[in-house]
Amino acid sequence: MSDRPTLKDVAARAGVSPMTVSRVVNGEPGVGPETAARVERAIRDLGYQRDAVASQLRRKGQLAHTIGLLVDNVADPFMAAFASAVEDVARQRGNVVLIGTSRDDLKREREVIAAFTARRVDGLIIIPVEGSHRFLQPAVSTGTHVVCADRRAPGLDVDTVIVDNREGVRDAVAHLIAHGHRRIAFLGDRKEIWTIAERHAGYLEALAAAGLPADPALVRNGLRHAPDAATAVKELLEQPDPPTAVFAGNDIVAVGALETLPPSVAMVAFGDFVLATRLDPPVTIVYQDPVAIGTTAAHLLFARIHGDLSQARTVVLPTHLIVRGSGELPPRSR
Amino acid sequence: MSDRPTLKDVAARAGVSPMTVSRVVNGEPGVGPETAARVERAIRDLGYQRDAVASQLRRKGQLAHTIGLLVDNVADPFMAAFASAVEDVARQRGNVVLIGTSRDDLKREREVIAAFTARRVDGLIIIPVEGSHRFLQPAVSTGTHVVCADRRAPGLDVDTVIVDNREGVRDAVAHLIAHGHRRIAFLGDRKEIWTIAERHAGYLEALAAAGLPADPALVRNGLRHAPDAATAVKELLEQPDPPTAVFAGNDIVAVGALETLPPSVAMVAFGDFVLATRLDPPVTIVYQDPVAIGTTAAHLLFARIHGDLSQARTVVLPTHLIVRGSGELPPRSR
Repeated sequence: MSDRPTLKDVAARAGVSPMTVSRVVNGEPGVGPETAARVERAIRDLGYQRDAVASQLRRKGQLAHTIGLLVDNVADPFMAAFASAVEDVARQRGNVVLIGTSRDDLKREREVIAAFTARRVDGLIIIPVEGSHRFLQPAVSTGTHVVCADRRAPGLDVDTVIVDNREGVRDAVAHLIAHGHRRIAFLGDRKEIWTIAERHAGYLEALAAAGLPADPALVRNGLRHAPDAATAVKELLEQPDPPTAVFAGNDIVAVGALETLPPSVAMVAFGDFVLATRLDPPVTIVYQDPVAIGTTAAHLLFARIHGDLSQARTVVLPTHLIVRGSGELPPRSR
Repeated sequence: MSDRPTLKDVAARAGVSPMTVSRVVNGEPGVGPETAARVERAIRDLGYQRDAVASQLRRKGQLAHTIGLLVDNVADPFMAAFASAVEDVARQRGNVVLIGTSRDDLKREREVIAAFTARRVDGLIIIPVEGSHRFLQPAVSTGTHVVCADRRAPGLDVDTVIVDNREGVRDAVAHLIAHGHRRIAFLGDRKEIWTIAERHAGYLEALAAAGLPADPALVRNGLRHAPDAATAVKELLEQPDPPTAVFAGNDIVAVGALETLPPSVAMVAFGDFVLATRLDPPVTIVYQDPVAIGTTAAHLLFARIHGDLSQARTVVLPTHLIVRGSGELPPRSR
C-alpha cells in the first residue's frame, strides 16, 4: 500500500499546494475552475484514491457510521418526512444522520457539503439545488458516496431517486380538464428547481394534449413561502378572465393558496399534506411518497458504502392521483 | 501556555487511558459512572481546559463556524420551525448548522451528541430528552458550549430557553371551563417529556382552581404520532360519560385528534399548526413562537462561543391564547 499515490503526489503533479487538493477533493469553495481542472487531471492520471485525506480522524477501512443529508429546508413537510425515512434506515444500520439545509442556495449547499466532507461521513444523500454539481465529481471519483434524491443533479453521475413528476401533473391537469376547466392556473416554487420545471412541463403537456392554449398570465412561479401563494391566488382571481381551477405545485404552495382560495374554485395539489382530507371540499392530490424516496435513497447509499461498484442508476418512483373532491368542482362563470 | 494541563495529565491523575478521558470529555458512552467521576475530579483538580482535545482538526483559537443542533424529530412542524430559526441566526453569522435527532431516545441523543463532539462544532443547541444530562457536564466544564431549548435538562447547568407551558395551558383550560365545560380531556405525548409534564400540571391546576375533579379516565398520554391521537379521541368519546371538550397537548396530537373529533366537541391545542384557521370551526390555540425560541437559543449560544462567561440563565418566553371558535362551543349533552 505504500506506493499508493498520496495527496502530496497529486499536489506536486498539479503544481498546487496540498491544501488546494484537499479543497478540491472535499468540494470546498475557493479554488478557481482552471486550478480545479488541473487537480482533477492529476487525480485521474495518478489514480489517486481519497481514503487517507478526508480528515485526520479517518482511519483506513474503518467506517464512521455517520452519513450526511442535505435537504432544501426542514420546515418543508415533504423534506421532513423524507429526512425521517432516511434516518429510520440509517438507524437500523447503527448509523447517525447529520442534516444540513441548502435553502435553495448553491453557495450554501457547497458550504454544508464541505462541512460534511471535512468531517467524517461515509456518504451523502442530497436534494440538490439547481446548477452544476461538477464540483462534487472529484469527491465522488475519489470515494465519497453520494446519492441524489427528489431532484437530478446536473453534471453528477450518481445514483438518483426521483418520482415521475410530469406524469403525475399531466394526470392531475387532465382530471381538471375532464371536469370542464379550461382556465387552469399553475402555482409553483422557483422554476429553476428541477421538480418544479418538470411539473410545469407536465402542466403544459396536459393542456397541449387537450388542445388548450397555455396562457402565461395563469402561471405563477417563484412562490417559496405559503404567503407568496396566498397573494398569487388573490391576484389571479382578480384578473379579468380568472382561472376556474388551480394546480398547486407543492404542499407549501397548496397550504398558502388555501388561505385565499374560495371553496368554489377547483384545486389539485402536488404532494399530500396534513388536514387535506378535513377541508371542505377535501383536497385532491398527486400522491408522492416521501418515505419511499428516502428509504430507497438510503438503501442505495448503504449499498455503495458496503462496496456496490455497479454503474450509477436512476430509480423513478410512481405518483398517483388521489381524488377527494376539490378537483371535481365544475367551473363557475364568474 | 506550555504548563497548561494536557489530556495525558488528566489521564495520569485519574489513572485511566487518554482515550477514556477523551470519551468523558466528549460525552461519549462506554465509560462507567465511577470512572467518569474520577476523570471529572481530575479535570477539576488540574483546571484542565478542553481546547486541545475535541479533534485533531481543532486549532487553538480558531472556530469551526459550525454548530450542532439536536431536536426530537424534524417531522414535527414545531421543531422544524425552531430549527429553521436557529439556522437563520447561524447563517447571518456565517455558520453552518448540522442537525441530528433523538426521537425521544436518550441513547440516541448521546450518540448524536458524540457524533457532534467527535467532529468539530463550536457549540450545541439541544432539545433534551428526559433523563439526566450529567453526562454532558464534563464537556460543558471543559469548554463545549451548550444551550437547552424547549425543555429543561436535569443535571445540566446551561442557558435554557423555554416557554411558560403551565400558564398557557391553565389559560386554555380556564377558557373551556368558562364556556361551560366540566369534562375536559387531556391528550399528550409521553408524560416523561418535560413540556408535556408541565402542560399536564397546568391542566390539573386549572381544574383545581375551578373546583372541578380530575378524572384520570379523561387523560391520555403517550401519544407520539397523529394516529395515536385519532384513536384516543375515538375511545374517549365512546366512554359512558364522555368529555365535551379536548385539550390537545401539542400540534401533532391536535392534527391527529381532528381526524376523529366531531365538530361539535370543543377543542384547544397547544401550538399553532397549518390550516388551523381554515377548519370549521377554526381551532383555538395556545400560541408559542418556535422562531422566538430558536432565535433566542442561537443568540445565547453565539454569545457563549464569543466569550460570554456569565452565569447560566433561563429565559422564559410567554405564550398566549388565540381564540378562534373551537374552544367556545358549548358542551352538548350526548
